[in-house]
Amino acid sequence: MANFELTREYIDLIKEQIEQNDIAHLTETIIDLHPADIAEIYEELSLDEAAFLYLLLDDDTAAEVLINLEEEKRQSFLKALPSEEIARRFIDNMDTDDAADVISEMDEDRQKEVLSYIDDTEVASDIADLLSYEEDTAGSLMAKELIKVKDSWNIIACLRSMRRQVEDVDEVYFVYVVDDDNVLKGTISLKRMLLASSDMLVRDIYNPDVISVSSQAHSEEVAKIMDKYDLVVLPVIDEDGKLVGRITIDDVVDYIREEAEKDYQLASGITEDVEMSDSVWRHTRARVPWLMIGMAGGLFGSRIISAFEGNIAKYPEVVFFMPLIAATGGNVGIQSSAIMVQAIASGNLGIDTSWRKLGKEVSIALLSATALSVLVFLFNLLVGSSQALTLTVATAMFAVVVFASLIGTFLPLMLNKVNIDPAVATGPFITTMNDITGMLVYLMLSAYFFGVFM
Amino acid sequence: MANFELTREYIDLIKEQIEQNDIAHLTETIIDLHPADIAEIYEELSLDEAAFLYLLLDDDTAAEVLINLEEEKRQSFLKALPSEEIARRFIDNMDTDDAADVISEMDEDRQKEVLSYIDDTEVASDIADLLSYEEDTAGSLMAKELIKVKDSWNIIACLRSMRRQVEDVDEVYFVYVVDDDNVLKGTISLKRMLLASSDMLVRDIYNPDVISVSSQAHSEEVAKIMDKYDLVVLPVIDEDGKLVGRITIDDVVDYIREEAEKDYQLASGITEDVEMSDSVWRHTRARVPWLMIGMAGGLFGSRIISAFEGNIAKYPEVVFFMPLIAATGGNVGIQSSAIMVQAIASGNLGIDTSWRKLGKEVSIALLSATALSVLVFLFNLLVGSSQALTLTVATAMFAVVVFASLIGTFLPLMLNKVNIDPAVATGPFITTMNDITGMLVYLMLSAYFFGVFM
Repeated sequence: MANFELTREYIDLIKEQIEQNDIAHLTETIIDLHPADIAEIYEELSLDEAAFLYLLLDDDTAAEVLINLEEEKRQSFLKALPSEEIARRFIDNMDTDDAADVISEMDEDRQKEVLSYIDDTEVASDIADLLSYEEDTAGSLMAKELIKVKDSWNIIACLRSMRRQVEDVDEVYFVYVVDDDNVLKGTISLKRMLLASSDMLVRDIYNPDVISVSSQAHSEEVAKIMDKYDLVVLPVIDEDGKLVGRITIDDVVDYIREEAEKDYQLASGITEDVEMSDSVWRHTRARVPWLMIGMAGGLFGSRIISAFEGNIAKYPEVVFFMPLIAATGGNVGIQSSAIMVQAIASGNLGIDTSWRKLGKEVSIALLSATALSVLVFLFNLLVGSSQALTLTVATAMFAVVVFASLIGTFLPLMLNKVNIDPAVATGPFITTMNDITGMLVYLMLSAYFFGVFM
Repeated sequence: MANFELTREYIDLIKEQIEQNDIAHLTETIIDLHPADIAEIYEELSLDEAAFLYLLLDDDTAAEVLINLEEEKRQSFLKALPSEEIARRFIDNMDTDDAADVISEMDEDRQKEVLSYIDDTEVASDIADLLSYEEDTAGSLMAKELIKVKDSWNIIACLRSMRRQVEDVDEVYFVYVVDDDNVLKGTISLKRMLLASSDMLVRDIYNPDVISVSSQAHSEEVAKIMDKYDLVVLPVIDEDGKLVGRITIDDVVDYIREEAEKDYQLASGITEDVEMSDSVWRHTRARVPWLMIGMAGGLFGSRIISAFEGNIAKYPEVVFFMPLIAATGGNVGIQSSAIMVQAIASGNLGIDTSWRKLGKEVSIALLSATALSVLVFLFNLLVGSSQALTLTVATAMFAVVVFASLIGTFLPLMLNKVNIDPAVATGPFITTMNDITGMLVYLMLSAYFFGVFM
């Protein structure tokens, strides 16, 4: 299967075939495509075109395509379909975790209606159970499909039971071992079963070292565990240790990427999760709030500067370097906080005490501050600035770099302690705060040095 | 197995037990830990302490711990060991991909020496082969361990062969089907084998739809394919279509996370990949270059401002809003470029033409610019600023927001076209560029309006 790349020509071809009702060629065009590729095509089609194409897909493919659509597109598409068709054509052909994801996007009445049309009552109750978990918990990430054997069985009984169980499961990664109360005891690998003789008991050969997670655990913890222990699938247990589901790594990959992207967006001052394809209005709404915070800071800064108006009128050269100092403060703050936010997000804070972290950050700050101060000092000597200006800029640079890096390090830590996402800090708070502080320090130092030397 | 959390007390306990040569208690302390947990402990120990602990680990655990160490720690630890011990105790107990990763960190002479001590010549040649691929290619990510069957075999022959093959493989995720020339034909799932009768031929029941990747493909492409198609494992083929290895998702998760973190760091103005635990010197080296670029921009800006010195001395209130305009330009640029960098990184550019993107970005820019201009206009009315100042600030705000968002959108696109990582742009280039442009536009407008009205 070749790697598929969507082109404008390809979309135009499909749109044309749809318009001409050319079912024969259309089927030929899409027959070999992976559902994920068809989903990409769907994103480019109108609702009517999408509905036409949908009629040509077999049930399994249609379900897979639906899962791969962006949420907005999926919702508008499902809105046009009766609940019974959604249940029969889509939900019945999905794994329970995907089914729960799709249903969770509907309003409550529709959820109940769709669930009522699912023929297999066990599947319906599994999905209802999954829907009951809070968002961003292990329970909301897991699927019910898994293969389990009892520790009292022998290998023959296992294989017989597994043959039945695999009909509901796409891929077999692990076989879980439970006791008579469904409490998770361990795993038994297919490898081990292939190597064992058929009358051996599960309890004599299973592996009791199994890492599991509580259904109430946060998704972040799930991601950390799977990442740290290099797991492809993680069993989920309830408060009694009973096996209730399993999480596969592909669901967690999405979470990891989204979190990393969210941190980056927050740090860039974007307050909502937006993508290229979102509407103009949504983009504006996501961007303007932080610009407002920045503006409030800038306006407040304008009041600070105005307090030094007399000095500025007398020595206008003071303002030449004001933007430099403010910008450097902002930059240093962003750097320090980015390191800290990533360390917090990845759980790599280490066990250094706060004092050791402080010591380290102070060292980095002093080194950087010295380097930058010396450079700006030399620059002012070179261009022949006055003694007062040269000293003002160099000392302000030093003070601002040290101050900004300390703020950048400790604000995220403090926000994290009070359970605010520290990534927020790297955007609005820190830049604005350091801009203002930088200007204030600079103007105060200038008032002092110009007072002494002029 | 409980979820392990490393504490300072725990480390102190282990250090104490090491110091007292208390092997009995030390063994008890660590016996139940996962190798990934022991690796965390290692990061906190001195080289001598680590060496002592290492003697208590069985070979499999020692190999796993080594893989889980940070590169720096691993290198300093291996430096102290003879090549023969590295080969026998570590490499022999690792999968080929991990072995190749560890060996690739050594200098060339050491690499040869270690390889020469590996008893199994096939394994040694597999590792040597993996080492031959360039960094960040599918070949460098893959492992050689996999299970394959020939399409001409029946199920009985498959199972017999698999029983032999699984001894070298930790977990069986997929069984690959190849022809007599080792060309990849498809997969056969364990599920299918469990359900099939034992005299059926592989060629009659295998699944020919298999997504594979060339060994020369870039890691980014590997990540995109596995993410898009939700794959846990991806087979790797050479230029003749022959099956040469497989990549598992856990290796790709690391890559995905590292890329996302790298983008964030670049956008925050950190030029090298650093972590909390890196040295003060490395942190400083990673941060100062971009501060220098920012400073160069700031110094250049100081020359621009000085060109307007006369105006500033006459109307010092002009400078009150200069930092506001510069900062807003910087902020808008960062936002626009962050969206674009993420879209490029995730391959979600869509197939909109550049013109449609331009149209959309212009709409967002005009909306935001209008909102911010009106606000700052009202602010100046409120505080009773002069007509000239009020008009200067409002028009400059409008111009800067529009200009900065266009730069923020198109600079990453252009950098990407010439194969420079566009994430670089969101840091240094865009902020500095927009700071300077903002000031210039503002000061020019102020010269005009103050000339007209005063």
